[in-house]
Amino acid sequence: MLNVAVAGASGYTGGELLRLLALHPYVKVVAVTSEKSSGKPITQLFPSLSRFYDLTLEPLSSEIAAGEAEFVFIALPHGTSITPVSEFVKSGKMVVDLSADFRLRDPLTYEEWYGVKHTAKDLLQSAVYGLPEIYRDRIKGASLVANPGCYPTASILSIAPLLKNGLYNGGKIIIDAKSAISGAGRSPSLAFHFPEANEGMEAYKAGTHRHIPEIEQVLSDVAGNTVTTCFVPHLIPANRGLLTTGYVPSDFSGEAADIVRLYREFYDNEPFVRVLDAGRQPNIRDVKGANFCDIGIALDKRNGCIIVTSAIDNLVKGSAGAAIQNMNIMKGYEETTGLMQPGLFP
Amino acid sequence: MLNVAVAGASGYTGGELLRLLALHPYVKVVAVTSEKSSGKPITQLFPSLSRFYDLTLEPLSSEIAAGEAEFVFIALPHGTSITPVSEFVKSGKMVVDLSADFRLRDPLTYEEWYGVKHTAKDLLQSAVYGLPEIYRDRIKGASLVANPGCYPTASILSIAPLLKNGLYNGGKIIIDAKSAISGAGRSPSLAFHFPEANEGMEAYKAGTHRHIPEIEQVLSDVAGNTVTTCFVPHLIPANRGLLTTGYVPSDFSGEAADIVRLYREFYDNEPFVRVLDAGRQPNIRDVKGANFCDIGIALDKRNGCIIVTSAIDNLVKGSAGAAIQNMNIMKGYEETTGLMQPGLFP
Amino acid sequence: MLNVAVAGASGYTGGELLRLLALHPYVKVVAVTSEKSSGKPITQLFPSLSRFYDLTLEPLSSEIAAGEAEFVFIALPHGTSITPVSEFVKSGKMVVDLSADFRLRDPLTYEEWYGVKHTAKDLLQSAVYGLPEIYRDRIKGASLVANPGCYPTASILSIAPLLKNGLYNGGKIIIDAKSAISGAGRSPSLAFHFPEANEGMEAYKAGTHRHIPEIEQVLSDVAGNTVTTCFVPHLIPANRGLLTTGYVPSDFSGEAADIVRLYREFYDNEPFVRVLDAGRQPNIRDVKGANFCDIGIALDKRNGCIIVTSAIDNLVKGSAGAAIQNMNIMKGYEETTGLMQPGLFP
Amino acid sequence: MLNVAVAGASGYTGGELLRLLALHPYVKVVAVTSEKSSGKPITQLFPSLSRFYDLTLEPLSSEIAAGEAEFVFIALPHGTSITPVSEFVKSGKMVVDLSADFRLRDPLTYEEWYGVKHTAKDLLQSAVYGLPEIYRDRIKGASLVANPGCYPTASILSIAPLLKNGLYNGGKIIIDAKSAISGAGRSPSLAFHFPEANEGMEAYKAGTHRHIPEIEQVLSDVAGNTVTTCFVPHLIPANRGLLTTGYVPSDFSGEAADIVRLYREFYDNEPFVRVLDAGRQPNIRDVKGANFCDIGIALDKRNGCIIVTSAIDNLVKGSAGAAIQNMNIMKGYEETTGLMQPGLFP
Repeated sequence: MLNVAVAGASGYTGGELLRLLALHPYVKVVAVTSEKSSGKPITQLFPSLSRFYDLTLEPLSSEIAAGEAEFVFIALPHGTSITPVSEFVKSGKMVVDLSADFRLRDPLTYEEWYGVKHTAKDLLQSAVYGLPEIYRDRIKGASLVANPGCYPTASILSIAPLLKNGLYNGGKIIIDAKSAISGAGRSPSLAFHFPEANEGMEAYKAGTHRHIPEIEQVLSDVAGNTVTTCFVPHLIPANRGLLTTGYVPSDFSGEAADIVRLYREFYDNEPFVRVLDAGRQPNIRDVKGANFCDIGIALDKRNGCIIVTSAIDNLVKGSAGAAIQNMNIMKGYEETTGLMQPGLFP
Repeated sequence: MLNVAVAGASGYTGGELLRLLALHPYVKVVAVTSEKSSGKPITQLFPSLSRFYDLTLEPLSSEIAAGEAEFVFIALPHGTSITPVSEFVKSGKMVVDLSADFRLRDPLTYEEWYGVKHTAKDLLQSAVYGLPEIYRDRIKGASLVANPGCYPTASILSIAPLLKNGLYNGGKIIIDAKSAISGAGRSPSLAFHFPEANEGMEAYKAGTHRHIPEIEQVLSDVAGNTVTTCFVPHLIPANRGLLTTGYVPSDFSGEAADIVRLYREFYDNEPFVRVLDAGRQPNIRDVKGANFCDIGIALDKRNGCIIVTSAIDNLVKGSAGAAIQNMNIMKGYEETTGLMQPGLFP
Repeated sequence: MLNVAVAGASGYTGGELLRLLALHPYVKVVAVTSEKSSGKPITQLFPSLSRFYDLTLEPLSSEIAAGEAEFVFIALPHGTSITPVSEFVKSGKMVVDLSADFRLRDPLTYEEWYGVKHTAKDLLQSAVYGLPEIYRDRIKGASLVANPGCYPTASILSIAPLLKNGLYNGGKIIIDAKSAISGAGRSPSLAFHFPEANEGMEAYKAGTHRHIPEIEQVLSDVAGNTVTTCFVPHLIPANRGLLTTGYVPSDFSGEAADIVRLYREFYDNEPFVRVLDAGRQPNIRDVKGANFCDIGIALDKRNGCIIVTSAIDNLVKGSAGAAIQNMNIMKGYEETTGLMQPGLFP
Repeated sequence: MLNVAVAGASGYTGGELLRLLALHPYVKVVAVTSEKSSGKPITQLFPSLSRFYDLTLEPLSSEIAAGEAEFVFIALPHGTSITPVSEFVKSGKMVVDLSADFRLRDPLTYEEWYGVKHTAKDLLQSAVYGLPEIYRDRIKGASLVANPGCYPTASILSIAPLLKNGLYNGGKIIIDAKSAISGAGRSPSLAFHFPEANEGMEAYKAGTHRHIPEIEQVLSDVAGNTVTTCFVPHLIPANRGLLTTGYVPSDFSGEAADIVRLYREFYDNEPFVRVLDAGRQPNIRDVKGANFCDIGIALDKRNGCIIVTSAIDNLVKGSAGAAIQNMNIMKGYEETTGLMQPGLFP
């Protein structure tokens, strides 16, 4: 059994890690941390976990860094991960960091978008971006994996095959994203107060969201040259689920079914990517609680545009599930261990 | 008092017309029709209208065409409006048709997108597209007004000022639209069964939705040349509300606030268009039950893209409210009569 | 025109007062107060009110008490109304207090349930409980009306006719109530954070909710002897709406339709109470945004129980609408002025 | 591996059986039936099951009855189970019937409440009511188990300990139940059309719901004498979850914590019943997707009433999960096999 710690266990990502790890046959969670809720049993924050965990939240400390956990998931806010990640790595532990702190290779880009100095630039170089479908080989040998953001996961998986196959003609790539509200975290605020958010919908951070450089970094890797995207996220009144609608300019003269074929080749052996038949559209309801990314293809020939939609559960494939998938790869377990569950529908 | 009939009163659009007309000081509803629910009191289909109407649904018939109603709203499915509209107009009544049957000037375009022969081409020439902010002068003299679709209303109002002011550089215009589920009508089907639609979201008719030619017809009018758009609608789990996110390629080098200023000039005296300050985004919750169209502007200079979002209530400004606004103009009433109500929030 | 002030205008009740008053022909709102949001335009807190109000929030102060407003709605938290109400009344203004501070005739009962000393006992004696269907005559002459709680309004209206007509046999009265989440107010907290409340439901304050003494006070008035009720409220994932299911032990041997007849006599001339036919159940969706209370009757003869359900919009008939209805009565306006609107469905 | 068939696999209960069985280590699903969707792959009806099943729906037929399945789950509508259950049992298969057809011991009661003649009265005598917490020993030896209704499961589990421990004083027991909408099945109809059901709530079948005799049969067993209940169900706008609020008249003079202690003794070794501390209330969100029944206790001494609330997922502990729990017992597997998962929160 692998002894695991979850740092930042009181938020939705932390809770989701615990939900999924409860079903993982090789893992034992030995520590959970929270500053604000320190001293409380984890089941008080998550009554749904009652009968599964008998752990009490404690502050993140050097005892934990020195403790029995061999593997650490860090689900802390952006900017606060750098120090604990460094400590854990120094202590010889394997780490999946779910924050943005080690996702961007260029510290200047990080500082520009996050407004925070990066104080562990060396470590940054050894961190691997944890999107297995693109970087699996590097994840295998890594001791520090930066878990992708939820928007980047859906955006990249839906567009990468077009770039790889030369179907993108260089025009403006638009990504219109829609996220359920758990993506905004568990801290109460007026915007997410139930009567404000329910029956509401709006765009936010249009063209300025911090996930943009991450998307562009990976798409540029895939394309072999610099790719930029105009990205606008929206919040929709649902608990879980994230849908991206990508508009990729293309001179492709074939049919949608041809593109579906290319996608299926690209994702041939991927356990968690499901490419739908042409004419079908992914729905967030079909991936709720599951680690899948469902992808749908449409073609607007009148406008020379390939329209790719992708649906994930923002807390699973967009966060905790991907983190466990990374752990499985890093530890050499079968990659799907503990993750091969159907979504909860309805 | 103006005697009014509502043909097709059992659906959401019909119900919304009745809700709003109940508060209109110059209108008396004298007939409501429905084929399926004929013989039932309207309050059985809409208990919310109890104490406001004492009418029984009847089949659409030539008696009604010959009857006391001087003004008729037709809220019938696409393709079934042509005959009754013709009859009513022949009887000398004024008509607002809420279907798509008289929206497209070119009958071939209609036939191509709707798969139905147009059998009243003469009438088509005299029909006026009922978007007051663009065609107010023509609506004034019209006896037949084709009420715009919900997606076109939000799409056109949000993009027209850019075309008019030459801020669009000719590239691909993308419109990513999100609609609440009342937009799909009142007929039960699996896709809109509560547990299927709740906590769900998906794109549909990507690049092929029938509202596309309507959007392009008006935007081309405004621009003075042919404009096409790549349009993808989505359904989100809410009752009312429609948001469009338009991506307009532009070489504009100023700031978002400059564009806001242009929009406010464009919509200077419009009672129902509210242009938000730069940095603010419209939310469907703020127009629920109201006849407003709220517009927000953002600028993605990295990608040369103006991002315009607009929010309406699909059943009000996107349908019944606009129809009454058209009636007010056609009859010479103050345009805001019966419509100047704040949205229902929360 | 009546000059009106709304104290505590930043919450849902305040916003709803403003929404409804915008349509009231005899009212002009001259001041809106908020401590936390002082200095902000009211339309920043309620974008839906944009184009209707050009007011800025100010702190509640003696200037306002001395100011031009002749009529004041006080929508402050329980316990904080006593002082401003006293001041306003002393200044000769008419007041509707929407808090609980003047609802209970016996200050000891108030202190027992609210844990606050009542410091205006004299005023308490002259305050009238503002449920027009029961106390209309007293409201007419009052200068201070205590607006009923949302749960009491639905509970009392649904059960009073049984007590009045001697159909209650003295056993335990159970009231199981379900409220939408706007009833919990506009202050963000974890329990009402969207992902916590959506797809959730639970009971709270079972048998101990502060609305209980209010319900019992009025039911005892109606019955002519002391009546107690076992009352349990629940929160359900919706924005607006409140449903009570009352279980009244009875030896009545007739049919549900007979009881419906009695209810219709009891509420004969009431503009805002709609008693449904036997066999029909009220639904909160049919009163959304409206000032109606819909009541349904069922009979469980096997258990000797009359089951009465009632639906209101907690923010309208359960709060702001009732407050305006009281103002209309106090000022001698037609009682339905500004309030006779159909609900917003769907 | 146990070969299993699911008859009636196209509805929510069928889908939920398949979701859960996909994780069951000893089960292989070999056949799925549906009349309406015969010929379609199961993953077309449930895209969420894609990658887990490669089965095509077929009509229920004698081939299946004669086929390789050794164990059959029957998720057919009430009244249509009798014949196939009889056939399967005759073929020597073990059966869990999820309909109501074998739940009531007395065929006359069945006929009275369901309006259908019971044509397999012999079999009725050998059927066991599948509520393990009450009838585990009988389930062990059974070849036909009648799976309980969702309302009865929550109602019985929440009230049985009071009857068993003599805390009920013989007065009227009230059960006010609230169900999410998946409980109404997967067939579209106006009442469950999204815009009708969302933001709506109403009571239905007040005092006449068909689950009543089932509740009374078991509670009478537990109490040792005839018990009746006044039962009123409501629909609330959520996908999954069922809450019952039981009002049990009692002369108990102790504290809520004492009752909690009795409940914990009663459910001492039950893996799926979680009794909350006094002062806490169960929430449906904490059992979503899980097989737990969470129970909360409150005491209204003023009215001599014990208030017991219980939350289940109507599709899991209220249906498919319970069916698998029954299968585990019937087959001698560890009872929790495939079922010990935390709920999906949020």
